[in-house]
Amino acid sequence: MIISTERGARPNEFRFERPSVIGREFCPFCPGHEELTPPEIMAYRQGGSAPNAPGWDVRVVPNKYPALHVEGDMGREGVGLYDRMNGVGAHEVIIETPDHKDMLADLPVKRLEDILWAYRDRMVDLKRDVRFRYILVFKNHGAAAGATLEHTHSQLIALPIIPTSVLTEIEGCRAHYQQKERCIYCDIVRQEVSDQERVVAENPEFICVTPFAPRFPFEMWILPKRHAAYFEESQKTQFEMLAPILSESLRRMNRTLRSPAYNFILHTSPLHEKTGEYYHWHIELIPKLTQVAGFEWGTGFYINPVTPEEAAKFLREAEL
Amino acid sequence: MIISTERGARPNEFRFERPSVIGREFCPFCPGHEELTPPEIMAYRQGGSAPNAPGWDVRVVPNKYPALHVEGDMGREGVGLYDRMNGVGAHEVIIETPDHKDMLADLPVKRLEDILWAYRDRMVDLKRDVRFRYILVFKNHGAAAGATLEHTHSQLIALPIIPTSVLTEIEGCRAHYQQKERCIYCDIVRQEVSDQERVVAENPEFICVTPFAPRFPFEMWILPKRHAAYFEESQKTQFEMLAPILSESLRRMNRTLRSPAYNFILHTSPLHEKTGEYYHWHIELIPKLTQVAGFEWGTGFYINPVTPEEAAKFLREAEL
Repeated sequence: MIISTERGARPNEFRFERPSVIGREFCPFCPGHEELTPPEIMAYRQGGSAPNAPGWDVRVVPNKYPALHVEGDMGREGVGLYDRMNGVGAHEVIIETPDHKDMLADLPVKRLEDILWAYRDRMVDLKRDVRFRYILVFKNHGAAAGATLEHTHSQLIALPIIPTSVLTEIEGCRAHYQQKERCIYCDIVRQEVSDQERVVAENPEFICVTPFAPRFPFEMWILPKRHAAYFEESQKTQFEMLAPILSESLRRMNRTLRSPAYNFILHTSPLHEKTGEYYHWHIELIPKLTQVAGFEWGTGFYINPVTPEEAAKFLREAEL
Repeated sequence: MIISTERGARPNEFRFERPSVIGREFCPFCPGHEELTPPEIMAYRQGGSAPNAPGWDVRVVPNKYPALHVEGDMGREGVGLYDRMNGVGAHEVIIETPDHKDMLADLPVKRLEDILWAYRDRMVDLKRDVRFRYILVFKNHGAAAGATLEHTHSQLIALPIIPTSVLTEIEGCRAHYQQKERCIYCDIVRQEVSDQERVVAENPEFICVTPFAPRFPFEMWILPKRHAAYFEESQKTQFEMLAPILSESLRRMNRTLRSPAYNFILHTSPLHEKTGEYYHWHIELIPKLTQVAGFEWGTGFYINPVTPEEAAKFLREAEL
């Protein structure tokens, strides 16, 4: 658990179940408002425009209210029975487009590809900091999915420890590999390509499926068909194929579910770990349709009212 | 993951992020509407009133749209790479009061105690079914916390497997016990009683604290001070002490956070497991104030904007 008191909230600010969303007028992500964010880390710019000024297509800035801080050491200490460490890490925002009204799903595929390159470039850069052991890229779209700013953006967090849920996933993959000498995600891709029942979209390099045991209704996974542990080591031709299937998956979701709030999460291998043979990067896309409640908190199990086969059928049949 | 398609939903029913809440007029939990629920399993009734008729204080019924079914065997099978089993289990609703407008926090303590006895009586009864390995009792209050009915109620689910999150918790307790021959929750109780910083309420048998590493702002744990693994084996005097501290904790939460939606979850030992020495039952109370978003789904870590010491201070100082 990470305690981040940057915003200095008082209890009465917590009463509201939904964060208030910042709209266009005070949007720190719109061109001309560059001074409202910390100085940019990188940007893809049209020829010759100056940093921290308009003229960019994708812009990466530090999060103004970071959950973690780049400076300092980890300061691990015991507090009686408990353990504490400093929140060392990087927390960055990838502003996906200069236009406040754009939605990621509706961007031209070529611009979606640029956003994927921005993820990759930041990962390659942050990987050089030896303190970091995991880089998480994710997107919250819509207030119900935790977005506090309307202007479409993704986030990147570099962490000094491997998250528990990543460890659990990797341990599962390792166990399968030790038994069978095959990557479990490669096995999943083979079975889904063969069954076709849960396939939402497919191209030569990627497949989008509703997983066999989805936690959430209309949950989707986008997997590279060829084995690959590290997102940031993808070939150029793979990014060219990932952008259109991500775009298509988002548009099928939007058409089927009337543009819901959603999260997507890039699951990639931890840094400096030898997971190359048994881990397989992928994207998990979760429309925010249901409330996680007492049962889920108490068990770690999820009750899903839609079968993945039904969900895939609805998504496949959506008219784009 | 549990797939439950009882309600036969179509995609357009998923568009709404909040379930529509059933109010008083069509409330199946109000006296006089007993025929709107399946026949009752048990009820605490005033002298001589008939089953499935008015005259009850607490009434337990099967969930009309159960996530799991009591009948049948588990039917474990492989589906290619995947595993599948039938959703065998019991799913019951504890209707906490006949009065539609009552809130659990505002009930007289004596009536809260009766509700705890109802949990216990159902657990003792279900424990006799050898298929069940875990019984989860939880409460969702308010639409944001997953409640679909306004009339205050709790739920009980008996499961044929031990939930993953329970297993993880128990493994942690076992590791601590193997190293130190002490229950970790007993250690927590001792440290919290001594520190006082995170104490919200206390009586001779129980303590309510904000945990050292809370996932959520204003999360609270209610723990018996004396070691006890099984909720259902509590002494009568303990229920007499649990009811007032649960009531006080709920009222402090309501006063501090203006009656938020919330979940509470009873964490108790799995059935037929020898966890008596190292597991310690407790209640986790989670006000629903923040959205779980991409970061949490991607890591299993939680970002909390309030320290537990601040939260405990606000809760302690609330005027009741």
